[in-house]
Parts: sequence; C-alpha cells; structure tokens
Amino acid sequence: MKKRSLPLGRVYRLLEPGPVVLLTTAGAAGANVMTLSWHMMMEFEPPLVGCIVSGRHHSFDLLRASRECVLNIPTVELSKQVVACGNTSGRKLDKFAAFGLTAVASFRVRPPRIEECYANLECTVADTRMVNRYNLFVLEVVQAWVDPAVKEPRTIHHAGRGVFVVAGETIRLPSRMK
Amino acid sequence: MKKRSLPLGRVYRLLEPGPVVLLTTAGAAGANVMTLSWHMMMEFEPPLVGCIVSGRHHSFDLLRASRECVLNIPTVELSKQVVACGNTSGRKLDKFAAFGLTAVASFRVRPPRIEECYANLECTVADTRMVNRYNLFVLEVVQAWVDPAVKEPRTIHHAGRGVFVVAGETIRLPSRMK
Repeated sequence: MKKRSLPLGRVYRLLEPGPVVLLTTAGAAGANVMTLSWHMMMEFEPPLVGCIVSGRHHSFDLLRASRECVLNIPTVELSKQVVACGNTSGRKLDKFAAFGLTAVASFRVRPPRIEECYANLECTVADTRMVNRYNLFVLEVVQAWVDPAVKEPRTIHHAGRGVFVVAGETIRLPSRMK
Repeated sequence: MKKRSLPLGRVYRLLEPGPVVLLTTAGAAGANVMTLSWHMMMEFEPPLVGCIVSGRHHSFDLLRASRECVLNIPTVELSKQVVACGNTSGRKLDKFAAFGLTAVASFRVRPPRIEECYANLECTVADTRMVNRYNLFVLEVVQAWVDPAVKEPRTIHHAGRGVFVVAGETIRLPSRMK
C-alpha cells in the first residue's frame, strides 16, 4: 500500500469509530503484534489515545519497557490474521512470519508498522501512571500514515467471542461536532 | 422497547465495538443528555468504562457532582437526535423535550434512561483521579438493559464532522478471545 502522512489533528477520525487494531511492539528479541479493542481517543492534538493492555500479554512487557508502539488499523480482509494474533502469544511465536504480516520500518519509533493495514499510528507512551491500577497506557501519536486509496475502510469491531461487526454504510449529517 | 436485564459480564459486547452513546446525567435543575464517542472498556466484570467528558460540557459538571450517569446506546434510526444532542447545550435547552427523547426512570441511579435506545447502562463514577488531567471518568456499570428483539443493532460510529459509519454485516470467526 502506498500511504501518505496524515496530519495529526485528523487521527481521531481513524480511532473514534472503535475499530479493532493490531498493536506492534519491539524488544531485544524482536517485534510482536497483539489484537486490541480497548482503546479510546483522549485528546485531539497532539493526539492522545488511551488503551488497556493486560499484564498477561507479552506486549505489556514490551510496551512498558520500550515505551513505544504502533497502532495498525486492519480492514475485514485481515480478520483471520486479527483473530490469529489474538489467540496466540508472541512469547512462543513470531506472529509476523506465522500469519503473513509484513513488518516495515516506522519513521519515529522502533516497533514496525504492518504493511497490510490501511493506517498506521506511530506512538510513544506519554503516561504510565494508570498502568499499575488499570493496565491503562496513555499513548501520544507522533506520526500517522494512511492509504488515501481506501476511502471507506471496512474496519472490524469486536463484539466478543469472535463476533465482529464490519463497518457498513457511511452517512453524513450536518453537524458542528468535531 | 421491552428490555431485559443483561448480565454485567456481557456489557463489554455492547461497548467494545465503539458505538456513539448518549450520556444522561441529572442535577437539581433536571436531566441532561450529551453525545459521546470517546469511551472504552477497562474491565470485564464488574464492567468498568473509561470516558472523556470535556469540561466545557454541562454534563461534565453534572457528572462530577452527582457521580452517576447512564450510557444509552442508539441505533441509526436516532442519528438525527444524536447529532442534535451533540450540537446543543443542556445549559440552555431541555434536549429530551426538544428532540423527542423519552426519559424513563433508572433502577440504580438518578439519571434517566433513554427509552428509544436499544441498550442502557446505568453507571456510577468509580474513579475521578484522572479527571483534572484528562477529563477521564472511570465508570462502573451497575445495571444493564438491552432489548432482546434487536439482534444486530445498527449502531453508529463517529468518524468526525458529522460523518458516521453504520454497523454493517456481522461475521463470526473461531476464536478463544473473550
């Protein structure tokens, strides 16, 4: 995919609809990827994103230690890989190789971007004060990429137990809401 | 709508896909409703939900003072009301009357539920320690209601500037993910 840089003030338009994302992290032993649905926008610009990463996950250790990650946004074509990433542990498996995901270099952070995802948000960890109590990391998006050819991305939205709702029609209403 | 009580352990299945919600609050001068997209699940059970409510909103004052609210989940049939609630202030307007939303009594909290929404999550405020820094309220869902007749709710997902993505087809994949 040929992506362009997205102004940071528009990042909320990608995450606010609530898509499942693939979180990439990196450590001395290599990169990892996990499936993540518990995230929300916290500020428009610079974009802050809250996310919950359970302490059981290998990605938790990598994220806390490296303080960097990428939020990669997949579309329905990647749903099998999304589920596969959610059902395996990076402690035992190179998920990129196992599931055919292409790791490409990021520009601002060490963890790789996933080529097959239509958008990639390179993030640094801005606040860890709520990690001990809630496993809540506050991320700052420092560089965003999006494939401009994907006009209405068919993102997937987890409704539990392997059930996903796919983004459907787009409607436009007169609104002053940002 | 005839709703049934939903086990609290299933609340995440409603919010995890990222729908726009209508937040109801109450104070001495009556109830209010605002449109909210910045929320995420934080814990399965008891269900904790994080949400960002800007200090500019009338609902911020009501929520902080009363420490109670309801997250009402609308479907696409209510999209005009959702936008109308997002573009007006409860300081000046009774939005229930203005937009034809029916306030019905909640069971566990003072703020009303919105009858026209297919699901209602009655919440208490569990943690305000991140309000000053991030306008982040941690809510605990104490009672949940859902209309069992709505099998595949056509929720709406805000992508900015009045653009909403409507929940489309549902897909099911073998998964061990909760």
